[in-house]
Amino acid sequence: MDELEIDAVAEVSLTDPVLVEGLPGVGHVGTLAAEHILEEVESTLVRRIYSHDFPPQVAVEDGVTSLTCTEVHAVELESGRDLLVLTGDHQAQSNAGHYVLTNAFLDVAESFDVEELYALGGVPTGELIDEYAVLGAVTDEALIEPLEDVGVEFREDEPAGGIVGVSGLLLGLGARRGFQGTCLMGETSGYLVDPKSARAVLDVLEAQLGFELNYDSLDDRAEEMEDVIGKIQEMEHQQQTMEAPSDDDLRYIG
Amino acid sequence: MDELEIDAVAEVSLTDPVLVEGLPGVGHVGTLAAEHILEEVESTLVRRIYSHDFPPQVAVEDGVTSLTCTEVHAVELESGRDLLVLTGDHQAQSNAGHYVLTNAFLDVAESFDVEELYALGGVPTGELIDEYAVLGAVTDEALIEPLEDVGVEFREDEPAGGIVGVSGLLLGLGARRGFQGTCLMGETSGYLVDPKSARAVLDVLEAQLGFELNYDSLDDRAEEMEDVIGKIQEMEHQQQTMEAPSDDDLRYIG
Amino acid sequence: MDELEIDAVAEVSLTDPVLVEGLPGVGHVGTLAAEHILEEVESTLVRRIYSHDFPPQVAVEDGVTSLTCTEVHAVELESGRDLLVLTGDHQAQSNAGHYVLTNAFLDVAESFDVEELYALGGVPTGELIDEYAVLGAVTDEALIEPLEDVGVEFREDEPAGGIVGVSGLLLGLGARRGFQGTCLMGETSGYLVDPKSARAVLDVLEAQLGFELNYDSLDDRAEEMEDVIGKIQEMEHQQQTMEAPSDDDLRYIG
Amino acid sequence: MDELEIDAVAEVSLTDPVLVEGLPGVGHVGTLAAEHILEEVESTLVRRIYSHDFPPQVAVEDGVTSLTCTEVHAVELESGRDLLVLTGDHQAQSNAGHYVLTNAFLDVAESFDVEELYALGGVPTGELIDEYAVLGAVTDEALIEPLEDVGVEFREDEPAGGIVGVSGLLLGLGARRGFQGTCLMGETSGYLVDPKSARAVLDVLEAQLGFELNYDSLDDRAEEMEDVIGKIQEMEHQQQTMEAPSDDDLRYIG
Repeated sequence: MDELEIDAVAEVSLTDPVLVEGLPGVGHVGTLAAEHILEEVESTLVRRIYSHDFPPQVAVEDGVTSLTCTEVHAVELESGRDLLVLTGDHQAQSNAGHYVLTNAFLDVAESFDVEELYALGGVPTGELIDEYAVLGAVTDEALIEPLEDVGVEFREDEPAGGIVGVSGLLLGLGARRGFQGTCLMGETSGYLVDPKSARAVLDVLEAQLGFELNYDSLDDRAEEMEDVIGKIQEMEHQQQTMEAPSDDDLRYIG
Repeated sequence: MDELEIDAVAEVSLTDPVLVEGLPGVGHVGTLAAEHILEEVESTLVRRIYSHDFPPQVAVEDGVTSLTCTEVHAVELESGRDLLVLTGDHQAQSNAGHYVLTNAFLDVAESFDVEELYALGGVPTGELIDEYAVLGAVTDEALIEPLEDVGVEFREDEPAGGIVGVSGLLLGLGARRGFQGTCLMGETSGYLVDPKSARAVLDVLEAQLGFELNYDSLDDRAEEMEDVIGKIQEMEHQQQTMEAPSDDDLRYIG
Repeated sequence: MDELEIDAVAEVSLTDPVLVEGLPGVGHVGTLAAEHILEEVESTLVRRIYSHDFPPQVAVEDGVTSLTCTEVHAVELESGRDLLVLTGDHQAQSNAGHYVLTNAFLDVAESFDVEELYALGGVPTGELIDEYAVLGAVTDEALIEPLEDVGVEFREDEPAGGIVGVSGLLLGLGARRGFQGTCLMGETSGYLVDPKSARAVLDVLEAQLGFELNYDSLDDRAEEMEDVIGKIQEMEHQQQTMEAPSDDDLRYIG
Repeated sequence: MDELEIDAVAEVSLTDPVLVEGLPGVGHVGTLAAEHILEEVESTLVRRIYSHDFPPQVAVEDGVTSLTCTEVHAVELESGRDLLVLTGDHQAQSNAGHYVLTNAFLDVAESFDVEELYALGGVPTGELIDEYAVLGAVTDEALIEPLEDVGVEFREDEPAGGIVGVSGLLLGLGARRGFQGTCLMGETSGYLVDPKSARAVLDVLEAQLGFELNYDSLDDRAEEMEDVIGKIQEMEHQQQTMEAPSDDDLRYIG
């Protein structure tokens, strides 16, 4: 295998497609969102990208191995604009590898005449949250207003450390190659896999691109996570109750 | 020396050969198994593979140095199918290096018209074990049934993290080049060098390929390890006895 | 994007220009100094240097992303000698990357017929300081005397560990390509961002190259840092007072 | 600068020269030995080797910078065989870098028609030692006997972990290119710079190659280190005396 290989698994004809990227990251928000699209609508696997920059690893499913790669699935939507959904189990394992792989992803996008990119991910808040805001970052100031219209927030100096990895480079390298890029970052605690944050990101994407998904399965996963969170909070509460004696406790001493 | 060099040490004519790989890993299962084959049957060193991806190191034996490499030995068996046994003291030192070296190993296999690969290794269970199961993973679903017939287990979602390193890539990259690949993973605690696990893997390989080895030396090593394990367990038992007082201890208080 | 790309943003005609480098390092002295020049005098962005050796990252300002790069700004001074000011948010992320990027910076310098380089930075003293000496290091012994005349100190065996990173290589690789290079290192504690050290370095550079800057904004930042340092020292003093009882305390016992 | 550059500083005509390598390592034995040769006999700097695999760093001496490199000095001896002494402040910073640099060193050796290599270094014993044995390792069994005649020891399975870095690769890669290589490893505690171990290695090299050095300066450094060791041992002894009371101490209590 060469250092980088792009397998053309199938050819499809798409209408004005946009690339939607969801790779592993904070709260698995990007992966959850991308995989939910592929679960809910019909798709065709069109490209696999293999690279020496991925971990030297195969996944095993029902005893059969498959080499680590990134997959690109074509999704034909009735709304008019089709999707190329890019997802996988791994990011690059080195700094330079992120550049190499992102360039390959942009090559694939270009070969399908994609002009717009959406990088999906999470932004950590450091605490459990109720309201799931979606932060935005774009390659071009003109993209901000329509995104604000569908609920995306643009905050001064956020995210503070910039955007690292493939999501960041899709915009950074994409802009140099003439793509229009948007990064949608769902707020998430950063401690747990977060289906609610993925849902918030997808809500925005739906409104922006004009399609509709069924969310039953993602909401189920969100409820499971809520149960987990509920138990954690209960345990924390009990602990605090035990540590800080109430008035009743004090009266008892008297 | 170039970044990668393959020395042709000898040329041999083999009948329908299979590649058997055993490099350092969990419990040294793969190395023990590969080296036991070379101890028990006559073999010819046919290739040495040198690479900048190996550690910058020479081994010293009786004062004479030899540069780190992987060796491929040809084994002619009476059973009809010959072996190419690949073994060495080191794996690659970087992610990309695993890809580069595995490609070189597949080049060697191809040059001998190998069509089937067996990657030998261990899978850690995290505890001492009595029954040494051998897990399997294959490049092609059709390979599963005949392997189950000789006792290999295929379990859903195991090994959970996939297969990392040369063993994994031999299947992953091998499949892309048209090889049929099988990974045989002997269960092992993961804490100790494990000749019993290596024996379990070889038992399966023998049944699969139709050859027979003498196991006296490997069984001797296994017994030595059993002694070590026995002493560890005895010490643990004594410690527990001291910590958890028995009924007799309690009566003594009374 | 190739591994390294130099974007020509604008072309300018400069008079006998010198390259002034200020990248992140100890006390942010180099960056503070370089950025202060660009704040105080008119400049033209002439080059952007992108590289796989930078972190895979975009910065986000008012919602708009920009790919990590190093910028070179042209500054036309009335004094006769113009400046090329090189600055950015990141150094290279690997050993070899420092060589690659420094070579690129020297290519840019060469394309503007630069013959002299000034690398600005800090040298850590390990303690808070009052007098901000500026240490020098040069590619050519003949450069020492004129620098001593404007207050630069040259000390035997300092800095002890040599000069690491782009500042060091600008002199090391620059000398091999025929440039005359000077490294100006402001003493700084090494614990805090240090505008006073940056000012000390710029004072020397002004005297050496014959230009004058307004320092109000840098002095303001220095005062803010002084306040921070003052509070730290006060806290330390209080702590010491509490730990070491004074005579009064002892009398009280009596 | 290219990834690797070899500067030809001077050309000399040498008689049957051998390469003697002494780079930083355990106890600085190799560097001390190589540098002592250059201090005691007249030499000509003939080559400088620069590489992206060295740290991105300049040394500063009396204010003047010099880029990290390895130097090769020619030494013409009356004994008949001349030396090429290779030394420097740094080893390569990566695995692959050791291969690249050692290949370059062998290129230099080849260009001077060198056929024999001596790699000088230390082998750690883990404790302070009185008798400084010198261990050997060679590329060819035939080299062992003459080395044993001048006092070099060859021990089964030592050094246990093989020889790592440039010293190891000079033999490993050298053998592949037809050089005869010897590694001389002075025993040393591994905790301190060890001029006595360097002296032991040089004693062997002198006898082997038929030259004689003055050792006053190296013996002075050894004595200084002995003083340091003496003080450490005294402190350890006092501590033990305080911890383990002698019979006298006990009597005193009575």
